[in-house]
Amino acid sequence: MPQNLPGLDPALAERFAAIVGLRHALRAEGDIEPYVHEPRGLFTGASSLVLRPANVEEVSAIMRLATETGTPIVPQGGNTGLVGGQVPDRSGGQIVLSLSRLNRIREIDPVSNTVIAEAGVVLDVLHKAADEVDRLYPLSLASQGSCQIGGNLSSNAGGTGVVAYGNARELCLGVEVVLPTGEVLDDLRKLKKDNTGYDLKNLFVGAEGTLGVITAAVLKLYPKPKGREVAWVGLASPEAALALFDRAQDMAGSALTAFELIGHRPMEFAMRHIPDARPPLEGDWPWQVLMEISSGRSAEDARALIEDILSAGFEAEQVGDAAIAASVAHANEFWRLREMLPETQKVEGASIKHDISVPIASIPAFIAQGAVAVASVCPEARVVCFGHMGDGNLHYNVSQPVGMAADAFLALYRDMNKAVHDVVRAMNGSISAEHGIGQLKRDELIATAPPIAIELMRRVKAAFDPAGIMNPGKTI
Amino acid sequence: MPQNLPGLDPALAERFAAIVGLRHALRAEGDIEPYVHEPRGLFTGASSLVLRPANVEEVSAIMRLATETGTPIVPQGGNTGLVGGQVPDRSGGQIVLSLSRLNRIREIDPVSNTVIAEAGVVLDVLHKAADEVDRLYPLSLASQGSCQIGGNLSSNAGGTGVVAYGNARELCLGVEVVLPTGEVLDDLRKLKKDNTGYDLKNLFVGAEGTLGVITAAVLKLYPKPKGREVAWVGLASPEAALALFDRAQDMAGSALTAFELIGHRPMEFAMRHIPDARPPLEGDWPWQVLMEISSGRSAEDARALIEDILSAGFEAEQVGDAAIAASVAHANEFWRLREMLPETQKVEGASIKHDISVPIASIPAFIAQGAVAVASVCPEARVVCFGHMGDGNLHYNVSQPVGMAADAFLALYRDMNKAVHDVVRAMNGSISAEHGIGQLKRDELIATAPPIAIELMRRVKAAFDPAGIMNPGKTI
Repeated sequence: MPQNLPGLDPALAERFAAIVGLRHALRAEGDIEPYVHEPRGLFTGASSLVLRPANVEEVSAIMRLATETGTPIVPQGGNTGLVGGQVPDRSGGQIVLSLSRLNRIREIDPVSNTVIAEAGVVLDVLHKAADEVDRLYPLSLASQGSCQIGGNLSSNAGGTGVVAYGNARELCLGVEVVLPTGEVLDDLRKLKKDNTGYDLKNLFVGAEGTLGVITAAVLKLYPKPKGREVAWVGLASPEAALALFDRAQDMAGSALTAFELIGHRPMEFAMRHIPDARPPLEGDWPWQVLMEISSGRSAEDARALIEDILSAGFEAEQVGDAAIAASVAHANEFWRLREMLPETQKVEGASIKHDISVPIASIPAFIAQGAVAVASVCPEARVVCFGHMGDGNLHYNVSQPVGMAADAFLALYRDMNKAVHDVVRAMNGSISAEHGIGQLKRDELIATAPPIAIELMRRVKAAFDPAGIMNPGKTI
Repeated sequence: MPQNLPGLDPALAERFAAIVGLRHALRAEGDIEPYVHEPRGLFTGASSLVLRPANVEEVSAIMRLATETGTPIVPQGGNTGLVGGQVPDRSGGQIVLSLSRLNRIREIDPVSNTVIAEAGVVLDVLHKAADEVDRLYPLSLASQGSCQIGGNLSSNAGGTGVVAYGNARELCLGVEVVLPTGEVLDDLRKLKKDNTGYDLKNLFVGAEGTLGVITAAVLKLYPKPKGREVAWVGLASPEAALALFDRAQDMAGSALTAFELIGHRPMEFAMRHIPDARPPLEGDWPWQVLMEISSGRSAEDARALIEDILSAGFEAEQVGDAAIAASVAHANEFWRLREMLPETQKVEGASIKHDISVPIASIPAFIAQGAVAVASVCPEARVVCFGHMGDGNLHYNVSQPVGMAADAFLALYRDMNKAVHDVVRAMNGSISAEHGIGQLKRDELIATAPPIAIELMRRVKAAFDPAGIMNPGKTI
């Protein structure tokens, strides 16, 4: 059936299929199905062809033919993106280019602390490869079992380790990119410093596949911490959390490897919906923080450091209560609780989500003003606020009121987005801190970003992809 | 006299001068003189007009008029760049745009750990402003008493703190840029995470004023270390230094704030030419390292950490001898010695310099093969090797043979560059790790970089500066 979609000429499909071989050119509807939906079900596209090339040469041949024939190409990694950047439109004329088979780790260099990984390497596979040479690749995402390096870079992924190690952009030293014409830009250099001309790498990183296809990258590795401690902290207010963050960063520097803020309601949902969930703390704290310390020196050092930070926090009356995980299993339990927050929110019905960032000092004000904005749109809506406080990045999600029809609540989507994002904009914040623009936020970006920024982005797009075949309809 | 240069029409000069006021439009030869030479004397340009605008509006008006009249503009900061990027050509038709009067610190936010500084703020002034709010701005350069923030960013400056804090690019969260048309891109956001479209910021950073004029930036601040220790270490080989670096980074993480490698000959020159110089170590070590540890915890912690690293290094026979500075004055003496190396080299006659980087693991091989390359061009030439080992970045300078005529040695400039850079390229390294391209390395970049990279950079240039008025003849 998909072959009958108006968009892609069957003879042309044959030419593309021949590049990768019939086995790796998916054309049956059931085979294509997993590539045209995204995980939240917000965007469903259509395609009559999914190509799964084996190597850079095949990607290059595909792009050459795409340029020759004006065929739009949608690059896709692990298909875990949350803004619809990786799924085709509904026309059926866009080809999905899956990078999954480019999954080699080409080189790992523990002395230079670098690894060269192909786009299709799954994040967890890279974690394990680094671990085997006693190194750490610190990008840490909920989807790490299926997301891929190429997608991580194309979306400039964030996650929980950004506070110490930076986001995907900062972990990348060089890229290999197949351009729309099929030409290959080889910038796979293992260099910490290189001031030779314009920074092309950072254009491709975060471009959501709209400028070229990232096929491989040089990524930074780090020494593996010798000690790790995780604490769960109860606090009275976001102000107290901010003061504790400031103190922890001051004392621990880059040994502070996570600082996650969690509001009262997501904890309530978690306790309600996780079977056998144990609250990490006694008492009912309005705000909680998961704090992780990783020491390069020793296990004892990590322990002493987290205790010193918490003691100082108690003395300054920033910390209300705290529990340090007693074992690795206990620490993993803390992390699992944090990572299940989005899932437990699902059970409570429809939600409208925001992935925002503001200057760190503005986090308490944002939380206060955000609540007012939400109430102005839907007074009984339930704010579910948690996120990467150390990066000024909150997942400011809003669950439907109890008893309201999901549809009625979702009808408020645009109004709710606008109300929350207006607060963000007034604080000079970002409406997409880590998830990107994709299809979900494209219209809003274009409508609200400074016109000159949009104009410059369009010029970049036209300079790199004059035919407009790279992931059309995304980002810009 | 400069008014008689063919390039700039006097009536047009009047229109530009009127924008900034007569006092700030320099037209007398003596006034212009300091703006048309660069510090090493490699490039001398000419100009009949230096404009010193007071604010963004004046910069904007200048660029608007420049676009209208096709007048080339050369932005300039502290004029400390080493590759001729900031000086005009010899035509006399290029206007120098000095950003020195845009020297306000617009805001400093110790909670968000950010500062908004205008382009003309001198680096040391920023250091002091950060210090006053108990914060650190970690960019550290030999020229910090005169170099300016705008120049630091336009050249993506490096220096001694990069190993812990990154280069100028990594310290910058947002920029304000006046485009060639006079339009102002305001991207002064204090955000650690922002995934809303293409990364324009990183195009302007490192573009050497060829895409627009950076007028202000949001920069990262860090907690001020509570303890600092500096050690001078004697080692047998670059391999030993590499092993010690690996160990130090493993144990200290981001508390390792400097790791500078120094060869035998620069130390010899320093001892010969610094009055009353005291060698930090007894004995004659072929390689030496200046290592700095900064602790966010306490002075005692910094001391314990550096001792632990050195003890472990001794045990593993990586460290031959080491002296920990006994006081702040002693530590400053170590640093002064390191920073005087370029100056003491000058006394030894003509030199041919290289600012290279290679993957860190390749540093020992580069040092071995570099010596062979140098000898192949000039057997008696004296290699002066020192630099930021932790970044894979060496200042691989070559002093003339004793007794050779300076001119005869400098006649080997191109051959020497080629021989050394061929070694760099074979190791997939960079011929400009931190100084940039400017005029000095433009031809070599264009001749040796992958053609597709040059092509993409040219498209970026054409997209941002279609009239070609921004710092023509530089970078690309």
